[in-house]
Amino acid sequence: VTDLDATIADHARRAREAARSIVHADDKVLDEAISGMAARIVDAAPTILAASTRDVEAAEASGMSPALIDRLRLDAARLEAIGGQLRQLAEVPHRAAEREVRTLDDGSKVLEREIPIGVVGANYEARPNVTIDVASQLVKSRNAGVLRTGAAALGSAAALVDEVVAPALADAGLDPQLIQLVRQPDRDAAFALVHQPELIPLVILRGSGDSTRSLANEAARHGVRTLAHADGGASMYVHPAADRDTLLGLVGAGLDRLGVCNRLNLLLLDEAEWDSLLPVIVEKLESLGVTPSLPPHTHRLGHEWALDDGKEATVTISPVAGPTAAARTATEETSGLAATIVTDDAAAAREFIDAYGGTGVFWNRTTRVLDGFKLLGVPETGINVDRVPGPRGPVTFRDLVLRQFVVVPG
Amino acid sequence: VTDLDATIADHARRAREAARSIVHADDKVLDEAISGMAARIVDAAPTILAASTRDVEAAEASGMSPALIDRLRLDAARLEAIGGQLRQLAEVPHRAAEREVRTLDDGSKVLEREIPIGVVGANYEARPNVTIDVASQLVKSRNAGVLRTGAAALGSAAALVDEVVAPALADAGLDPQLIQLVRQPDRDAAFALVHQPELIPLVILRGSGDSTRSLANEAARHGVRTLAHADGGASMYVHPAADRDTLLGLVGAGLDRLGVCNRLNLLLLDEAEWDSLLPVIVEKLESLGVTPSLPPHTHRLGHEWALDDGKEATVTISPVAGPTAAARTATEETSGLAATIVTDDAAAAREFIDAYGGTGVFWNRTTRVLDGFKLLGVPETGINVDRVPGPRGPVTFRDLVLRQFVVVPG
Repeated sequence: VTDLDATIADHARRAREAARSIVHADDKVLDEAISGMAARIVDAAPTILAASTRDVEAAEASGMSPALIDRLRLDAARLEAIGGQLRQLAEVPHRAAEREVRTLDDGSKVLEREIPIGVVGANYEARPNVTIDVASQLVKSRNAGVLRTGAAALGSAAALVDEVVAPALADAGLDPQLIQLVRQPDRDAAFALVHQPELIPLVILRGSGDSTRSLANEAARHGVRTLAHADGGASMYVHPAADRDTLLGLVGAGLDRLGVCNRLNLLLLDEAEWDSLLPVIVEKLESLGVTPSLPPHTHRLGHEWALDDGKEATVTISPVAGPTAAARTATEETSGLAATIVTDDAAAAREFIDAYGGTGVFWNRTTRVLDGFKLLGVPETGINVDRVPGPRGPVTFRDLVLRQFVVVPG
Repeated sequence: VTDLDATIADHARRAREAARSIVHADDKVLDEAISGMAARIVDAAPTILAASTRDVEAAEASGMSPALIDRLRLDAARLEAIGGQLRQLAEVPHRAAEREVRTLDDGSKVLEREIPIGVVGANYEARPNVTIDVASQLVKSRNAGVLRTGAAALGSAAALVDEVVAPALADAGLDPQLIQLVRQPDRDAAFALVHQPELIPLVILRGSGDSTRSLANEAARHGVRTLAHADGGASMYVHPAADRDTLLGLVGAGLDRLGVCNRLNLLLLDEAEWDSLLPVIVEKLESLGVTPSLPPHTHRLGHEWALDDGKEATVTISPVAGPTAAARTATEETSGLAATIVTDDAAAAREFIDAYGGTGVFWNRTTRVLDGFKLLGVPETGINVDRVPGPRGPVTFRDLVLRQFVVVPG
């Protein structure tokens, strides 16, 4: 056990103790705490922006890339946006957590219900706004949390916890210790966060790529479950009955941002239309400044360009034999995040949808819609691409629960 | 990659290919296959019983304990019981796998649905009947499977697959390769079964104790999810308002079998009644041939007697301060499988129920009811005590699904 492990365990114990204040709190109290965060974001803006400026200056001095610095920076408009999201979350209705499933022969009632997990971990790098995002969703789901962010964002994250989260919890009558922020800038704190299966059984890993993959593996070795998607990359299958304008529109919509997990990454073109449609698609990609990767491929078919530094503006194109073959390729050769079929043929759409095994499948719609807020109207806790039962695809606060059965006399 | 790993991967690929025959099969076809298994259990009884006799004779020659041999043996009555369970499963109605959750601004419909996992693994030791149990539940949930059993049960398990499962699948028009049985008697095949996250993302581990724990750890290291409970052991809290007859009845009901995971293992007696009720409880235990383990304890409070060879007939007794303290002790010091409160005070019952975090919580009812069939009326695939979202407590075929979102034009 390292010092960092002991530090994390200490945070987790404090969070667990505080969690007892939220399990039976009124729904209204939770929403008051979240609304209170929205109000405090405004009141504390000068302090938060000063902390952000210090983080950004330090990052610039250390040579951080402009793209990462952009993620790191908080400004008045971003604080305003965070406040808006909080107000929206506060208004999402709470669902009944308990339902009667059966009456036993002796008259006993069997109830199935959802209870909080207890303490949930979250790791995220240079995006200080995730602090508020995760904290508010944990409060909405009656969980406590141990949050860990990268050294670059630590000043801003600490300001958000100290000036916004903790006082808003206290104002609502909840224990401000509910949301713990790891104050060590040490990179190894992320690993220590996934070493405590008894105290922190679930950790949300924001981000993607190798660092997420290595954290997810470390967690698995320690018996800690993660909600994560190290890999993304969406697929599009172009069927012979595709409408050309719809196709070009969806190629554009799928590439409005290149660094995101649900962007168009692999375009599967029906071999019957390879000769007729390939030039049209390539021309469209070129108009967007995107390079097609054509066969024969020297990379895995599912290679994720969003994670390939400097080659983000690439889309893999490959021929396929039909809807089922396309769906299987998209399922087996990629992370299985999302896939769409472009066609005006309803039977082909049904065939593709039913053969795809990933987390989201779309018909004449962009895979960019695979997002908790866009799909479900509530903020996204994270995305999970595991091929096992449980929360999968966009995960929201509603998923941060444990199943429990209750038997009481009838 | 060992030879066994390659063998398992080969089984998994054949199962995955066969799974394509079941994804879109009519519900009726699934139930026909399961009813067909029930019919064939009768027709093939002589062959199955002959195989069982050979297994039992070999086990006796190897010096297997009588208790294990009893689990291993199939006889006419047991085959009849298996047939009855199959007929019951065939009659369980299928649920709608798809529901509309939202309409997007552009009129698109968002559907949430359940799709099969694909290939599910199962490992079980000397209980050949689990072969039919797991195979039928996989068919009901439209999954394929790779089943592995211990060397002692392999002859009977093979007879059940070859004479019952495969022909019943074929009769119903399904691919008999759907259910693969690993034919290697090698103990390491169990480890190889949890080495294939891409092909077999989920493995059901029947049984408990160290062997299950080590398999679950091996699976986690390889990124394979398991449904398992290495540890069980239920708790009972005796409140001052307990009715004495109810209490004695529940002590007896909780100890009707000593080798099962949901039996009474830890009795928490309210300290206010320690002096008055301890003698009554100890007398009751002694009448059942069960020894109380009284404080000061030299073992962990949650030590599971069912797994302590030769000491199964023991119950730990410990004082607690009240309903909340009892629920926390039961949650934190045991596997969190199940707990019950004995009281006639509804407020105390509510307090205990709401403070307990395990998978099943009961009021004046025995924890022996924590069982898929008893609670939910459908066969139990396994029990899972993970403290994370997803199937938890008794797992049934209904849980062997993946969540998927579908977006289609409105």
